[in-house]
Amino acid sequence: MLGNSFGRLFRVTTCGESYGKGEGSGLAVIVDGVPAGLKITEEYIQKELDKRKPGVGKLNSPRLETDKCTIFAGIGQDRITTGAPLGIIIYNVDTQDVHIQQYREYKDIFRPGHATYPFFLKYGEFQDWCGAGRSSGRETVARVAGGAVAKFILEREGIEVIAYTKECMGIIAKDMSFEEIKKNYMRNEINCPDLETGEKMEKKVLEIKEEGDTAGGIIEAIVHNIPPGIGEPVFDKLSATIAHAVCSIGAVKGIEFGAGFNVARMKGSENNDQPYITKEGKIRFKTNNAGGFLGGMSDGEDIIVRVAVKPTPTISIEQTSINMKNMKEKKLKPITRRDPTLLARIYVVVESMMAIAVLDGIYMARAYDAMTKLDEKWLNLKK
Amino acid sequence: MLGNSFGRLFRVTTCGESYGKGEGSGLAVIVDGVPAGLKITEEYIQKELDKRKPGVGKLNSPRLETDKCTIFAGIGQDRITTGAPLGIIIYNVDTQDVHIQQYREYKDIFRPGHATYPFFLKYGEFQDWCGAGRSSGRETVARVAGGAVAKFILEREGIEVIAYTKECMGIIAKDMSFEEIKKNYMRNEINCPDLETGEKMEKKVLEIKEEGDTAGGIIEAIVHNIPPGIGEPVFDKLSATIAHAVCSIGAVKGIEFGAGFNVARMKGSENNDQPYITKEGKIRFKTNNAGGFLGGMSDGEDIIVRVAVKPTPTISIEQTSINMKNMKEKKLKPITRRDPTLLARIYVVVESMMAIAVLDGIYMARAYDAMTKLDEKWLNLKK
Amino acid sequence: MLGNSFGRLFRVTTCGESYGKGEGSGLAVIVDGVPAGLKITEEYIQKELDKRKPGVGKLNSPRLETDKCTIFAGIGQDRITTGAPLGIIIYNVDTQDVHIQQYREYKDIFRPGHATYPFFLKYGEFQDWCGAGRSSGRETVARVAGGAVAKFILEREGIEVIAYTKECMGIIAKDMSFEEIKKNYMRNEINCPDLETGEKMEKKVLEIKEEGDTAGGIIEAIVHNIPPGIGEPVFDKLSATIAHAVCSIGAVKGIEFGAGFNVARMKGSENNDQPYITKEGKIRFKTNNAGGFLGGMSDGEDIIVRVAVKPTPTISIEQTSINMKNMKEKKLKPITRRDPTLLARIYVVVESMMAIAVLDGIYMARAYDAMTKLDEKWLNLKK
Amino acid sequence: MLGNSFGRLFRVTTCGESYGKGEGSGLAVIVDGVPAGLKITEEYIQKELDKRKPGVGKLNSPRLETDKCTIFAGIGQDRITTGAPLGIIIYNVDTQDVHIQQYREYKDIFRPGHATYPFFLKYGEFQDWCGAGRSSGRETVARVAGGAVAKFILEREGIEVIAYTKECMGIIAKDMSFEEIKKNYMRNEINCPDLETGEKMEKKVLEIKEEGDTAGGIIEAIVHNIPPGIGEPVFDKLSATIAHAVCSIGAVKGIEFGAGFNVARMKGSENNDQPYITKEGKIRFKTNNAGGFLGGMSDGEDIIVRVAVKPTPTISIEQTSINMKNMKEKKLKPITRRDPTLLARIYVVVESMMAIAVLDGIYMARAYDAMTKLDEKWLNLKK
Repeated sequence: MLGNSFGRLFRVTTCGESYGKGEGSGLAVIVDGVPAGLKITEEYIQKELDKRKPGVGKLNSPRLETDKCTIFAGIGQDRITTGAPLGIIIYNVDTQDVHIQQYREYKDIFRPGHATYPFFLKYGEFQDWCGAGRSSGRETVARVAGGAVAKFILEREGIEVIAYTKECMGIIAKDMSFEEIKKNYMRNEINCPDLETGEKMEKKVLEIKEEGDTAGGIIEAIVHNIPPGIGEPVFDKLSATIAHAVCSIGAVKGIEFGAGFNVARMKGSENNDQPYITKEGKIRFKTNNAGGFLGGMSDGEDIIVRVAVKPTPTISIEQTSINMKNMKEKKLKPITRRDPTLLARIYVVVESMMAIAVLDGIYMARAYDAMTKLDEKWLNLKK
Repeated sequence: MLGNSFGRLFRVTTCGESYGKGEGSGLAVIVDGVPAGLKITEEYIQKELDKRKPGVGKLNSPRLETDKCTIFAGIGQDRITTGAPLGIIIYNVDTQDVHIQQYREYKDIFRPGHATYPFFLKYGEFQDWCGAGRSSGRETVARVAGGAVAKFILEREGIEVIAYTKECMGIIAKDMSFEEIKKNYMRNEINCPDLETGEKMEKKVLEIKEEGDTAGGIIEAIVHNIPPGIGEPVFDKLSATIAHAVCSIGAVKGIEFGAGFNVARMKGSENNDQPYITKEGKIRFKTNNAGGFLGGMSDGEDIIVRVAVKPTPTISIEQTSINMKNMKEKKLKPITRRDPTLLARIYVVVESMMAIAVLDGIYMARAYDAMTKLDEKWLNLKK
Repeated sequence: MLGNSFGRLFRVTTCGESYGKGEGSGLAVIVDGVPAGLKITEEYIQKELDKRKPGVGKLNSPRLETDKCTIFAGIGQDRITTGAPLGIIIYNVDTQDVHIQQYREYKDIFRPGHATYPFFLKYGEFQDWCGAGRSSGRETVARVAGGAVAKFILEREGIEVIAYTKECMGIIAKDMSFEEIKKNYMRNEINCPDLETGEKMEKKVLEIKEEGDTAGGIIEAIVHNIPPGIGEPVFDKLSATIAHAVCSIGAVKGIEFGAGFNVARMKGSENNDQPYITKEGKIRFKTNNAGGFLGGMSDGEDIIVRVAVKPTPTISIEQTSINMKNMKEKKLKPITRRDPTLLARIYVVVESMMAIAVLDGIYMARAYDAMTKLDEKWLNLKK
Repeated sequence: MLGNSFGRLFRVTTCGESYGKGEGSGLAVIVDGVPAGLKITEEYIQKELDKRKPGVGKLNSPRLETDKCTIFAGIGQDRITTGAPLGIIIYNVDTQDVHIQQYREYKDIFRPGHATYPFFLKYGEFQDWCGAGRSSGRETVARVAGGAVAKFILEREGIEVIAYTKECMGIIAKDMSFEEIKKNYMRNEINCPDLETGEKMEKKVLEIKEEGDTAGGIIEAIVHNIPPGIGEPVFDKLSATIAHAVCSIGAVKGIEFGAGFNVARMKGSENNDQPYITKEGKIRFKTNNAGGFLGGMSDGEDIIVRVAVKPTPTISIEQTSINMKNMKEKKLKPITRRDPTLLARIYVVVESMMAIAVLDGIYMARAYDAMTKLDEKWLNLKK
């Protein structure tokens, strides 16, 4: 396997699987590019991890995982960051033999909508058949821990990243201000800030759950108060690195910025956002069809991204399948332990990957700026 | 500026702007990861470059550029690749002072929908104000030259990448087989293989052009005959690197895979593609809602991607604007030299970026496979 | 801090410091590019870690660290690698307040020969003043754990990497065959396979230790049985990436290949290694002045590298110093807990970094080979 | 081939070979990380290229190459950098069929001391047999063009990089101050600032040339006026990235820093450089055994590096060799067109690679600093 790192100057590297192999197993993230002098605590990170914790509420899988994090590296004796890379580990708890045994029985069985088939091709019989391995939703624990660090740094500068459920099975939340969304999006299980609509969504999901089925939806993510000029003009546009970050989350089937796919029906005169000068002398825009981007770089408006989330592939309905080892067709029995929708948990993963991509973009923009300007500070450094 | 390279093992690095600064100026791409022994000719690359050439037909900007390419490095005395990186240069031709003078007059003016504002913030008064610099559509010439190399290598293995116009201003092409699309998509100016619908699209675009306005649309791209198992399971899923590649093209406002945003209204039992075994003993799927991906890795079905393309921001209608230097509002006069839609040219850039991302993914998958297996071949190498 | 990863396809990312911050702190390495199906055990890695363990013997610091490793990720239920990145953690044990308190007293004091001054400039008062942080010798624990994985994979293919003491304070080991070196280099504390000379070296070091001083020396490293053709021809020559890897070890002040600095006094006719054909029909060389490299790529002879190791900077003699906070000169008291020479421990770090660089180079060579050749195997994959 | 880029934030990517394939062939470099607003001219770059030009003087190969450079991208209409990557091309001139024909005859012949054997293994019969391809000394033209850009930026900040001949065939230049070296090192053909000794070196080289042989030597490089704190503490120590950069130059067989291999005979109390405070209140050192590094990071003293350069492998003496295609031994005839020593040309390549590595290190240090500090400037950017 390759590609277990993301980011250039703010960089997360992760490892770990969903099921432990005895004592001490877990998921970890090494975070490079952390400033010295920050009081990032385990409590802060835990709060983020708890947002994606299974076993809570009616929309989540009944699986038990405490997901308790430990910062094992990068903080000094006074528990303040030293500038060294942070090491964060989350130990596995659910290592019950009964579940492992179930997985073992099905280890060569193709599971529709899952990564088992490519895993089998790539890693052969040694593929991690237990709990989907690195393609498990549990892999995202390490992303959220890394994302929490990114969020902490962004918050210091007044930049906020939130993601909430915009749509579920055709039920669409009304448009709301950033402040309203922020205030309300954590108040129901499905993370929809339009509380009335959220109630309908939850009802719908529970109906579908009753059928043994699962539900898809759309997450909208907002980056609030980002400065303009972030992103590189060619291959590493901020929009492109955000797309990379977000589409690397399992179950994501699309991403759009601002007006998104609606631009297919818009004229240039409708789509162009007209700029104006604020009373404070800043450039802002009358509309935000661009979703906060010009030429793929931030333009000072909120970044608005919508993400298509497929219904959980694990369903409680019998499916046709294949034994990949003997290449015989085989029925896959209904599976009962599952999330009826991913919306209630994936939002924090979207927040995390957005935060990582945005902070990394900010770092790159500042790097270029600092590295290419001759100012007093650098002249002074030369003592 | 940073981020002028894309790819890990198959890697393009580009430079160059839309307007020349005297004799010898141009755009170039250095392509690393080229096999030895290939007969990649300038003619082959030229054919791809001609697909995006302006000044041809009624849907294109009247700007004159011959875009003639020269391979200046990487081929041996017998004009066969040596394994060394290819160097390809395309000289600038349109260096008429009259156009440069026009740009100079507007150099501090914010152009709605363009990258001028972030450029001004990042590079100050030294920003390349002439013809949009690295954010010009002309920057894609180097991508297409690099993409041509990728396509050449993919074709050797029977893998094809095509992109065509699926939708324009609400007019939607009917569903067609890969073979039909391939046969027809180059037969009209708007690159729509559904020829009847293409005619309607062209008519619509010309009407909009008459208004001084521009039109948006949707490009669909297909990767045909790709082997399963390509892509890394975590951050570098093939879907994620394709999203990065495609969203790095200016004017792209969204990407979706297979059923894409429709998954928001689908149940798991509807969305999961059911596998079966072909007569030849291979695994295939009854549907392709996944767009060719499982866990972000290829599953052997065609990769299907749809890309939202915004209407050309340059319009022949007066717009409000700002002089960024003195921060005063200013009217921007109508601009006459422009593409009424980007659809007729951007498709080949989408093909190119898809080809680069896919080939790079194939290289990574093979690299992992080769590097981790002890076979006869490597043992023999140890002589 | 940046740059906590090394390698391209075989890639280690590390974190962790020498002193713990309470329960659970430690050093970790995430290893990417691990084949599936290997039985890499904690015992195997432990054996390597034990080679650099302090507190053993008269040439080592009396500091107590058990350096026990745990593989917490990347192995399946049957304790065989799955292809996922390995996660290895080594918990800190020596977290006694008495030592931490000592470091706190000296936290703003410049320690000659140590990294404290640049750390202070880079991370300010938040720098990790306790036990030298990421610039501590203890940082190499994670390198050795990662290097153990590389060695395991290399051994599978019959490639061996060893490093031993060639010279110490003017006392030079005689030339010996690879087999003799391998048999004897672990038989004394200073890791010199010429046992008689090793005895003299140890005696010399103990004399210097008595003076409160420390001793420098030269480590020679050999890569045995490496196939020819490894390394990229331009910036990533194998010799260059080995130089990067080895010079990234603290205390290393130089590296040379084969005849090394002696080439300054050699003519071309003396230095050129003449090739011949073996009975088995392979190309070998009559001499190995090149140290196993042609054009920076391996040529099939053993790779021979010599590494200059400075005397431990921590000495038991009073030194002038500076309080960096108030910029006043200050005497630094003799420090008693130290290694009288680094030679007895650093050799395994050299082995580790060599193994990582060599394996990564082999991976890259195979990657290029696999990715650029159309063979049966890949054609079959396209089912 | 892979690995044709060097650097992280200041990054050069090169292509091109020693022999042209008809009109328009050449060597090029794309330089990423260039500040906007610089007046880097072709004349400035040309001056550096001329330092390595063959065909000048008695110590150089008689080969004719004008090495005239063209900046084809990255500068604006006013010939000032725009922040976009620079593209620099140097066209091939010596494309005479007579030389190509000579190379063709010998294309399968192993040339002792050259890269032909690994090239044959890696690229097979398609390897660039003409003029050594990417392993030719001519490949360094592109490095020098990229290095010129790095030097230009460093000079702006008062940082100078020079490299000169310290030793040749046992004849050693006396120690001199930076100012004296700078004043004199370009005043003789062998680039030795100790003019009297330089005369002896040149005489020695000419004697050896008469024998049909070639001479090795040592280049010393100095980075003057570099600020302290440059380099990352772990894998990307400045010393390590300089080692990578310099050892990637063909013919380099070793590198040492400051006291270098002499540390093998030094005690800690001798080797440690003692710090003091200057009248201006800065930290400096009484000695510079460390060669300007503490913990691999710059300490404010001049960086001192010595580089072992092997004698030119091409000699005018018959050598044994092998036809790699039919694996038969074969005599290699004396070759007359060659450099009797590389010292007279390689120094500028060392300067270039040092400049690139140092500037890239400075960029990384500033990047980390800028990206991790909350200052007024960034708060103001958020308008």
